[in-house]
Amino acid sequence: MSMNQQCRLAHRPVGMPKSSDFLFTEEAIPTPKTGELLLKTRYISLDPAMRGWMNDAKSYLPPVGLGEVMRASTISEVVASENTAFAVGDFVFGSEGIQEYSVATGKGLMKVNPELASLPTYLGTLGMTGLTAYFGLLRIGLPKEGETIVVSGAAGAVGMIVGQIGKIKGCRVVGIAGEKEKCDYVVAELGFDACINYKTDNMHKALRQHCPQGIDIYFDNVGGEILDAVLTQINKSARIPLCGAISQYNGTEGTKGPSNYLSLLVNRARLEGFIILDYVPEFLPAIQEMAVWLSTGKLKTREQIVTGGVKEFLPALTMLFEGKNTGKLVLEV
Amino acid sequence: MSMNQQCRLAHRPVGMPKSSDFLFTEEAIPTPKTGELLLKTRYISLDPAMRGWMNDAKSYLPPVGLGEVMRASTISEVVASENTAFAVGDFVFGSEGIQEYSVATGKGLMKVNPELASLPTYLGTLGMTGLTAYFGLLRIGLPKEGETIVVSGAAGAVGMIVGQIGKIKGCRVVGIAGEKEKCDYVVAELGFDACINYKTDNMHKALRQHCPQGIDIYFDNVGGEILDAVLTQINKSARIPLCGAISQYNGTEGTKGPSNYLSLLVNRARLEGFIILDYVPEFLPAIQEMAVWLSTGKLKTREQIVTGGVKEFLPALTMLFEGKNTGKLVLEV
Repeated sequence: MSMNQQCRLAHRPVGMPKSSDFLFTEEAIPTPKTGELLLKTRYISLDPAMRGWMNDAKSYLPPVGLGEVMRASTISEVVASENTAFAVGDFVFGSEGIQEYSVATGKGLMKVNPELASLPTYLGTLGMTGLTAYFGLLRIGLPKEGETIVVSGAAGAVGMIVGQIGKIKGCRVVGIAGEKEKCDYVVAELGFDACINYKTDNMHKALRQHCPQGIDIYFDNVGGEILDAVLTQINKSARIPLCGAISQYNGTEGTKGPSNYLSLLVNRARLEGFIILDYVPEFLPAIQEMAVWLSTGKLKTREQIVTGGVKEFLPALTMLFEGKNTGKLVLEV
Repeated sequence: MSMNQQCRLAHRPVGMPKSSDFLFTEEAIPTPKTGELLLKTRYISLDPAMRGWMNDAKSYLPPVGLGEVMRASTISEVVASENTAFAVGDFVFGSEGIQEYSVATGKGLMKVNPELASLPTYLGTLGMTGLTAYFGLLRIGLPKEGETIVVSGAAGAVGMIVGQIGKIKGCRVVGIAGEKEKCDYVVAELGFDACINYKTDNMHKALRQHCPQGIDIYFDNVGGEILDAVLTQINKSARIPLCGAISQYNGTEGTKGPSNYLSLLVNRARLEGFIILDYVPEFLPAIQEMAVWLSTGKLKTREQIVTGGVKEFLPALTMLFEGKNTGKLVLEV
């Protein structure tokens, strides 16, 4: 029987995480006690929030401790069970981290049905990133029919769903992404009205062109210069759900605040953060609604799978921060 | 009969306004035509927003044109009337600018009663700054009994009212000001629970000391480093009414955005601008409520009067930006 390969946080990264920040260890595969399960990790979610968890800073979750297995959302298969609520062969969503095996009590695990959707989809559109898009747009963005939504990270796991829900709600949707292929994808495949390539287009000019009625909602996944550019073109009473700031997570000179934030004052606009864990009691109906949208073709999903297992964690995470992925980035174990 | 002394915007200031940015002119006192009034300016309001009106930038009001009389809120006396709605001797609130006389149609003017409150109070607590405090705190800040409110510019025209309304609503109120005398004033005279001197105290330590339950509402008049310090200690679901950023208005290197804005995300908090002109239909009941608070001693007002007339506009405005005033700063004509 093989060992349990694990990736542990060895140092708190400065700037972009590098290989010396992590330690690969192997341990004997643990044995479940009464009431416990042995889980074999099948898919690991790569998320921008991981970068924050590596910092020693107060946040909505405690930091990953040095020497601990790196935190990650996972889809695992039950391979041994001493818990009557779970059977061998069940698949579960959990937070088992960057490792091949884990022992769990069952608390916090959710079973997923591989016949209704592919396993990686439960880490994306029918998982945390889909729920982030759903609650962030609908509860913080408060879209009204005919309004204009701009979403950055448009081809990413959250952005692609934000834009599609925006279209379902009757809005004009303009994406922002960093590659022509991504822009083409969200317009041609996902039905966005337009997509701006922030690496090649003049942001101010492109926003004016594609948002002739101004911007009512900006779903911000990136922060930085794009947030500042959008702030110059928001409408009165605009809402900016603050989902992330991937452009700032690996900076070594501290976070750059939005210089144009006084546009919020002039436009009576709102910049508001949210954390998906606050909506746990509403996850079930939200997932149901999105599952219906998926099954009726109103919503499309996409995952990009990196193979190679636990050892590929850092290259996969780097892909995410370099904006190389389209759709939800998942590591297959 | 004397001439009409006026102060006009000559150049758009770079940084702090200086005397060469203004032009003092005199004209014959105009004569009202049928339906018009001749107004003699009695008090002129000094407001941080004036700095923004001097810039050639899109905002909630158009910029003051070069060569135009500088915009300002005013209390004037009707000295001649060809309009049956106004009698000689009436006092009116308006926006007649930095000049001694003006002709008006009556549109947008509001009569004020000098027997119910002193004339300068109608430019402050019973005028725009009082209304700014009232709607900003109650509609954007949404205070609940027992919550902690922090307000910067605590001894200024808006801040002093925010803090007192906070006390009326049963909150803990902590001010921030730049002089010991101001801090003593808001605590001893106005009933704030504490006041931090940002020039001499360690902001982070003082906020921790005086806000042991964290910060639920931060009423921001100043922006800059104080906003960043407060952001590190906000509570979950905190509200930050964005009223102004006086620390940034005269900068020559552009506005500094709040580096710690991602605290909004972690804390599901909200930074939201507002403009008092949006609440015009509700001004009357708000003024009534504040007048009752004033008459029953629940609310105290204070004005600081600069004498010397129109020629003293720039020194008075400089006092405001240097934080020399306590209470509402008003220029007597």
